[in-house]
Amino acid sequence: MKYNNVEIDDTYAEAFPVTVSRVLITAATEYWAKVAATEATGFGTSVIGCPAEAGIDCFVPADKTPDGRPGYAIMIVQMGKDKLKEQLIERLGECVLTAPTAAAFNWLPFERLEDKTQEKRLDVKLHFFGDKFEYQTEVGGRKVWAIPIMNGDFIVEEEYGYKKGVGGGNFFIMGETQGSALMAAQAAVDAISHVEGCITPFPGGIVASGSKVGSKYKFMKASTNEKMAPSLKGKVESQLPPEAKAAYEIVIDGIDEAAVAKAMTVGIKAACKIPGVVKISAGNYGGKLGPFKFELVKLLQ
Amino acid sequence: MKYNNVEIDDTYAEAFPVTVSRVLITAATEYWAKVAATEATGFGTSVIGCPAEAGIDCFVPADKTPDGRPGYAIMIVQMGKDKLKEQLIERLGECVLTAPTAAAFNWLPFERLEDKTQEKRLDVKLHFFGDKFEYQTEVGGRKVWAIPIMNGDFIVEEEYGYKKGVGGGNFFIMGETQGSALMAAQAAVDAISHVEGCITPFPGGIVASGSKVGSKYKFMKASTNEKMAPSLKGKVESQLPPEAKAAYEIVIDGIDEAAVAKAMTVGIKAACKIPGVVKISAGNYGGKLGPFKFELVKLLQ
Amino acid sequence: MKYNNVEIDDTYAEAFPVTVSRVLITAATEYWAKVAATEATGFGTSVIGCPAEAGIDCFVPADKTPDGRPGYAIMIVQMGKDKLKEQLIERLGECVLTAPTAAAFNWLPFERLEDKTQEKRLDVKLHFFGDKFEYQTEVGGRKVWAIPIMNGDFIVEEEYGYKKGVGGGNFFIMGETQGSALMAAQAAVDAISHVEGCITPFPGGIVASGSKVGSKYKFMKASTNEKMAPSLKGKVESQLPPEAKAAYEIVIDGIDEAAVAKAMTVGIKAACKIPGVVKISAGNYGGKLGPFKFELVKLLQ
Amino acid sequence: MKYNNVEIDDTYAEAFPVTVSRVLITAATEYWAKVAATEATGFGTSVIGCPAEAGIDCFVPADKTPDGRPGYAIMIVQMGKDKLKEQLIERLGECVLTAPTAAAFNWLPFERLEDKTQEKRLDVKLHFFGDKFEYQTEVGGRKVWAIPIMNGDFIVEEEYGYKKGVGGGNFFIMGETQGSALMAAQAAVDAISHVEGCITPFPGGIVASGSKVGSKYKFMKASTNEKMAPSLKGKVESQLPPEAKAAYEIVIDGIDEAAVAKAMTVGIKAACKIPGVVKISAGNYGGKLGPFKFELVKLLQ
Repeated sequence: MKYNNVEIDDTYAEAFPVTVSRVLITAATEYWAKVAATEATGFGTSVIGCPAEAGIDCFVPADKTPDGRPGYAIMIVQMGKDKLKEQLIERLGECVLTAPTAAAFNWLPFERLEDKTQEKRLDVKLHFFGDKFEYQTEVGGRKVWAIPIMNGDFIVEEEYGYKKGVGGGNFFIMGETQGSALMAAQAAVDAISHVEGCITPFPGGIVASGSKVGSKYKFMKASTNEKMAPSLKGKVESQLPPEAKAAYEIVIDGIDEAAVAKAMTVGIKAACKIPGVVKISAGNYGGKLGPFKFELVKLLQ
Repeated sequence: MKYNNVEIDDTYAEAFPVTVSRVLITAATEYWAKVAATEATGFGTSVIGCPAEAGIDCFVPADKTPDGRPGYAIMIVQMGKDKLKEQLIERLGECVLTAPTAAAFNWLPFERLEDKTQEKRLDVKLHFFGDKFEYQTEVGGRKVWAIPIMNGDFIVEEEYGYKKGVGGGNFFIMGETQGSALMAAQAAVDAISHVEGCITPFPGGIVASGSKVGSKYKFMKASTNEKMAPSLKGKVESQLPPEAKAAYEIVIDGIDEAAVAKAMTVGIKAACKIPGVVKISAGNYGGKLGPFKFELVKLLQ
Repeated sequence: MKYNNVEIDDTYAEAFPVTVSRVLITAATEYWAKVAATEATGFGTSVIGCPAEAGIDCFVPADKTPDGRPGYAIMIVQMGKDKLKEQLIERLGECVLTAPTAAAFNWLPFERLEDKTQEKRLDVKLHFFGDKFEYQTEVGGRKVWAIPIMNGDFIVEEEYGYKKGVGGGNFFIMGETQGSALMAAQAAVDAISHVEGCITPFPGGIVASGSKVGSKYKFMKASTNEKMAPSLKGKVESQLPPEAKAAYEIVIDGIDEAAVAKAMTVGIKAACKIPGVVKISAGNYGGKLGPFKFELVKLLQ
Repeated sequence: MKYNNVEIDDTYAEAFPVTVSRVLITAATEYWAKVAATEATGFGTSVIGCPAEAGIDCFVPADKTPDGRPGYAIMIVQMGKDKLKEQLIERLGECVLTAPTAAAFNWLPFERLEDKTQEKRLDVKLHFFGDKFEYQTEVGGRKVWAIPIMNGDFIVEEEYGYKKGVGGGNFFIMGETQGSALMAAQAAVDAISHVEGCITPFPGGIVASGSKVGSKYKFMKASTNEKMAPSLKGKVESQLPPEAKAAYEIVIDGIDEAAVAKAMTVGIKAACKIPGVVKISAGNYGGKLGPFKFELVKLLQ
């Protein structure tokens, strides 16, 4: 299949079940909300080596937030709920409680969620930091805790929702040059940033180093995917087309399959608008990794 | 003492020994270097709840870097070298190796360091990711590894330096309003950002939630410092002057005492230029926490 | 009247008729669209000394733009259509045609506009730059010109819409400190940035120097409004409350009265959430300046 | 000549005399200094259609500025001193006087300038805005005016320096793709941004639309340079190499020849590090335009 003259590989992205929380961080201004959201979602590209996968999902305007201040919805992703709870405690406790003028609200249930029973609660309980000076109050119809801190009272909920989500949605962008592939990857990340319910957790939303399972070094569980490395063309069997000299991968974690599917669709379409993009593909493990399949051709129809 | 009409508390900041690495992250453009540096230093405010303390130290222009590209020096801080090594592996492996066009160089020895024997090496060995396609080469006179990845070859060193540093340098800014205290905190962080060899690891460089050791809840090791909370004025004995309605703390980790001292000095001076700042103080534990003392009055003389 | 404990002056903002164009600037990525939009709207705070009033109205996502790329709607404002046409020619010709990957579309008719006859057209005709290599084509259902330039073909329309709009909507924020007033002004600008059909043309959206008509110097048409200057309190009759030590003004230009009214409403509400804001007022000339009146108390009811 | 495997055209950039002022804009924080500097230098790409050429030269740290606050040096460029004075009045009066917490200092004499007699003064006299409430005072050893405005007193000098400078320094970057050419242009602009005494006035520092003198349309003085347009390859005699599909130009205005030469040198070297760059050239008019010649090959030796 061709989309906008770019070859679309007849393959699928394989994704797996994850556990997801979604938190709204508000602040006095958009800048301070973003500062807190950025710190709270850093060091969060892959659960293989990071304590969680995390990222900013979307901006939430003041008229949609419980406290009437602007905010950013972030997503924190782990395999199971225990590690997720630990990450909520640490990332909200160390990076939002400490951030100027910030507040943290549960941002599940996700509004599109029809079956609300899917969503469950983790008792994060940051209010104990208040040393019995904390008190319960109401903000935007929610029961919250107020913890007296140095810049006023920090507003936080006692419990945060979590649900099963979809991790590892992905696609590859192969370009004639590093510059064209990277411009296309950026265009894809821009487009995906406006899809609610998903994140692209890697640096700037983009992966420069594709990996495969296993290694010639027995102590390594994963290693570089040499078939996608332009400097190994001619030395190994390459998956890059002859005219491609660079590739990037976009990895997507979503609140559900629909979010990942939409993100992949708009991301691929945006990438295909950039001159010099020659092929789009996706990564899978023949169905061994996970139950979710996103077929590229179907997404673009 | 008064500085620029602001009361300077006659006290000192108490700091403690930490273990520090300093890494230079370069990329094709300043933007992509900052993207990688930001991800690699996120979720890094306090070792109490974060896997490390981390932050961007300073920009390094292209004519000073081994590969002639622009970069940012970051610092990663932990209590001991084993945890620091683990953090180097994960933060460089997950957040720099994966970042578009990035490279990672050891950025110790610190140029001001007279006694080079202070600096030791950790064998981070990210090159095993290369699955035996990696090769050794030279960049800017350094022996480095090149790992073939999707956007070209990732350049990384085998070992990264570490040394004993100083953690927990700090000062407090008390303002007539939240806005004046925060503007002063931002001015302080701006000034400190140009001091080489230190970071302000909290969100945007600023701490909104001061803490004390211990809590009425026995399972909590630390809790809010009620004496610094404006909303508890009148209910507890307050350390805030009558006219202060908000406070922020700046926490500084440095490569050595000189870096922390300089950062505190320029930060306090910058804060004192902002209208509405009424008092500067600092946090200590009567000498129980650590061997480093930074007396405010001496710094400003 | 009090709103969120802030005194709302029982007065009105007086605004006047202006002529407005609205242009959509798209690019390969959001970053490059913003670069072009920022350059094209710079040096555009007040028609008293700038060649136009100009600013970024709002982000337009890729699925709403003619070329399927992300963009920013900008507004350019002048008193009459001839000067406006000149500004369209120069600002689009010098700052968008020259910008990497950019394109420029007419972004009137404004979708809320019921009476489409209000909108008229200016023949901007940038395509002559093409030196007869330009050609007409269609993008997103629009007839456009394509001009071959160094990075591909620049897409531009032959005519751009204009309509009568409203200039000089305004309100004042008075704060206990410079920091609280500025934080509130920033919160107001953040909120207004999400109202479609208006701009806040001053630096960062904020005015630090209020002015009055006339001067003791006969050659000056306008001069500082001493009644709003905190450093002149006690020397002149002040309009600042005793506890106010700084003030900022937000000036708004809108596509119509509804846009200005909404912008003022959300801006004032956002400002009143910031601690240390003591009073909101507005500027008028007793009805001599213009036919549009925005009464603060009515806006907040 | 080849530099880093990129063909360097054996040609020169031709530049012409201009009149330059350099102004330091300081503010309470780096952010607010940048806001004022950005507004004051907008709509300033080319004197052909803009009221001036203008841009941010470099960041000036707080310990180097007269008021001990951080700032940005901007440059404003016109052909002669009368138009330059007019632009100083309007850009400083409308975009800096009005900007939150800003101040404006003369930032000539340029420290590298040996012959100080080269520098002359324009009486900008913004202090008349003060309506006789203004007063003279001293800041950092300079005699300045303080004008009472809404957020405190605005500090401004009475006169601003100007000198003869060099306009239109330039080079072209030709890339295999739009993405590689643009990444290289960005790398060049990054590098040049650290050269003191020069600006790259076009959007983001980059020109996407090369022009030639004259046009088939008699009323147009300049038109697209079809020889550099990739979409006209095959239709006209092209100056792009066969493998180049896009080009960008970097235009540089400098305080003197040395600044332009250094900017061109570091810019070209940075561009040549980006994969996919195939050729660097420069624009000249056979010596008819101006007396300054910058030979590419000499710059890179």
